[in-house]
Amino acid sequence: MTGPRKVILDEKDLPRQWYNLMADMPNPPAPPLHPLTRQPAGPADLAPLFAEELIKQEMSPDRWIDIPEEVFDILKLWRPSPLYRAYGLEKALDTPAHIYYKWEGVSPAGSHKPNTAIAQAYYNKKEGINRITTETGAGQWGSALALAGSMLDIEIKIYMVRVSFDQKPYRKLMIEAWNGNVIPSPSMETNAGRAILAKDPDCPGSLGIAISEAVEEAASRDDTHYSLGSVLNHVLLHQSIIGLETKRQMEIFGEKPDVLIGCHGGGSNFAGFAFPFLADKITKGEKYRIIAAEPASCPSLTRGKYAYDFGDTAGMTPLMQMHTLGHDFIPPSIHAGGLRYHGAAPLVSQMVHEGYVDPVALHQKGCFDAAITFARSEGFLPAPESSHAIKVAVDQALEAKKEGRQRNIVFNFSGHGHFDMASYAKYFTGEMEDFAYPDEAIQRSLAGLPVI
Amino acid sequence: MTGPRKVILDEKDLPRQWYNLMADMPNPPAPPLHPLTRQPAGPADLAPLFAEELIKQEMSPDRWIDIPEEVFDILKLWRPSPLYRAYGLEKALDTPAHIYYKWEGVSPAGSHKPNTAIAQAYYNKKEGINRITTETGAGQWGSALALAGSMLDIEIKIYMVRVSFDQKPYRKLMIEAWNGNVIPSPSMETNAGRAILAKDPDCPGSLGIAISEAVEEAASRDDTHYSLGSVLNHVLLHQSIIGLETKRQMEIFGEKPDVLIGCHGGGSNFAGFAFPFLADKITKGEKYRIIAAEPASCPSLTRGKYAYDFGDTAGMTPLMQMHTLGHDFIPPSIHAGGLRYHGAAPLVSQMVHEGYVDPVALHQKGCFDAAITFARSEGFLPAPESSHAIKVAVDQALEAKKEGRQRNIVFNFSGHGHFDMASYAKYFTGEMEDFAYPDEAIQRSLAGLPVI
Repeated sequence: MTGPRKVILDEKDLPRQWYNLMADMPNPPAPPLHPLTRQPAGPADLAPLFAEELIKQEMSPDRWIDIPEEVFDILKLWRPSPLYRAYGLEKALDTPAHIYYKWEGVSPAGSHKPNTAIAQAYYNKKEGINRITTETGAGQWGSALALAGSMLDIEIKIYMVRVSFDQKPYRKLMIEAWNGNVIPSPSMETNAGRAILAKDPDCPGSLGIAISEAVEEAASRDDTHYSLGSVLNHVLLHQSIIGLETKRQMEIFGEKPDVLIGCHGGGSNFAGFAFPFLADKITKGEKYRIIAAEPASCPSLTRGKYAYDFGDTAGMTPLMQMHTLGHDFIPPSIHAGGLRYHGAAPLVSQMVHEGYVDPVALHQKGCFDAAITFARSEGFLPAPESSHAIKVAVDQALEAKKEGRQRNIVFNFSGHGHFDMASYAKYFTGEMEDFAYPDEAIQRSLAGLPVI
Repeated sequence: MTGPRKVILDEKDLPRQWYNLMADMPNPPAPPLHPLTRQPAGPADLAPLFAEELIKQEMSPDRWIDIPEEVFDILKLWRPSPLYRAYGLEKALDTPAHIYYKWEGVSPAGSHKPNTAIAQAYYNKKEGINRITTETGAGQWGSALALAGSMLDIEIKIYMVRVSFDQKPYRKLMIEAWNGNVIPSPSMETNAGRAILAKDPDCPGSLGIAISEAVEEAASRDDTHYSLGSVLNHVLLHQSIIGLETKRQMEIFGEKPDVLIGCHGGGSNFAGFAFPFLADKITKGEKYRIIAAEPASCPSLTRGKYAYDFGDTAGMTPLMQMHTLGHDFIPPSIHAGGLRYHGAAPLVSQMVHEGYVDPVALHQKGCFDAAITFARSEGFLPAPESSHAIKVAVDQALEAKKEGRQRNIVFNFSGHGHFDMASYAKYFTGEMEDFAYPDEAIQRSLAGLPVI
């Protein structure tokens, strides 16, 4: 080793403000539209669901937004997270590339998700809301919000996609350890859930359906708000702390990134990591290559349409201009459950559309190969979601090797795989499927677009 | 909060030497005896099993022993580990006490175990050994050694107590992710295993049996050594980095401990944390109260005899002077599998015997209560083993509250509970048993002592 293995900032060097890409985008973002009137949705339209301060952030033109002291104090439980130089992985790949990874699995919930969960719970609490609904797919987001609820004394109700609820009992138990209330979706507790169960009593659920249920319950109760773990601007804002820390840590390492990589589902982990760098690409002409790594079985950025669509299945959310496979699209059951979303964050979508971000789509077996290479050389066991970023980093490093050139590769290692061991079991026994692009399903679903 | 939430040392401030309590003990430790001759066991007796350098450390009178650069480089993957001020727990208990915890769950395997696994694998590798056997109960140690094997390119063969092998498939998978070879014990691969299976084909196994199998295989193959995850002096030595870091971190917090707590199974996590403080208690007259927290169902320190006994069931290991419940004692199946050992580290035993360390025995339900209080106030989800230390810390904090006095409580939070969710499930559903002291079994087993 030629330098430190990792850089951890001191608590006092933590960023005290979030970064808002909207201040630096070359073109203004397209507004969300009300699902019924199809007119731009204003703060009043969002008020039944979100805290006032979060709605402000959602629409804010300000470049920097202060992190409240109370949020900062809780983030310090695991932040700043370490940035590693991947000496072990470089050696395993025998590459001249320098590989760095930002390790977000140190949070109590095991991923980057609590960065926004804490902030969202805090603003709701501050505005007198003591009850929040949400949805969760693989369980990362649900457990993060349950953690936030236990830290800030807020009741959390979670609609968990039924297939995950049944297959991932340990995530459910983690949510209960933090006093969260979790039920399988579709459920009999909402109109959306009942309608779907009437048609298909065995429906395995989807993220889109679970969002419909959580939104419906929040909209129908005065004492309850709703919380989303990705996609929206304020969620991406809260995650910007990842990239802000990484920038400072790379300065301490004394190297400049050539390539920056994050996995992409709804967009929060990717954007949180990449946007602070993207800012310099836009405003300072930095030549970073910024890559969003998505699953080939749910390829919204690479194969979706850039169009207005609903964020959920039932059409209850505002319409957003984004890369979407259509809100009816049900992705195959890949193991990276956190990447199974039909749409994408509007801000990420626009940056892809305008050519600042390169999306790539990956098959899951190759991602698990990369995850195992990583685990055996760097120790940490990756979540299937994170393995998509690792796969791209490995490919980049091998490309550098072929060219015989140094290349500085930095990726966001968004979470650990401790609750995904059943997926690793399938990989080891060779039972893992490697879904191709679900062409027919995509074509069918895209045919319904644009919604307006 | 009145100060930082946690203190993380810089890599360059990491201790570069391990601390050896043997240099400061008021009385020399009793020597291990050869299992057959009953004479003091010398280096030659241990040579078939252990690397030469480890045998030297086992018997070393030196106070400080250098950490090899190569070991140091790997430890840096997760060390230095953070020391937290438990502001959340203090608030939840409404106590005037200041509570601190050292967080060892940040290692890739999720506990303190890799601290010695890396060192042991390194010395074996250096001496030309490319294959190591070991045993594992709950799986913490087995996964730590598999991790070390993958980092240092050594083949690892693990005998895993059958009941854990069957009930904890995820730990087994973690071991496989690091390329470890894991089989259930008792097995048909050793004389010890075959003899037991002949008598009882459904034998659920025990740590003592698994040790016998791993030792037998290592002793019978020239290319193979054996590795133990606790009990022995050199293992405790490698773990001293925990307490050394903690001392520096407490200095930065600017407070002096009144009480120091570690959970106790074989003794490595307790000793690693406590011995550097114990040194000052012996040599500088510090007034620390040092508490070893053990399970009431396997109370070797509080109810065992201080006598020579075998480390394993079959009587293949050297005899050690230690607190023991008898090598035939099979503890009830509590969820803190890592604390289910009939004996105790000889060095810890001697310190208990001479009055420097206070042992306490705890029932598991109370420990899980404390674990949940902790998870809901500090976020991190404890391993059942660690919950024993947390329970004592909580009791100490409540005692301070009753007295209306400040008290500085520091405990070692040895690992996370991500692979113990099935235990939490039993706790939540009320199905968890709360074993009393297994009096009759202890009496029966103690009757066989002293062995000499």
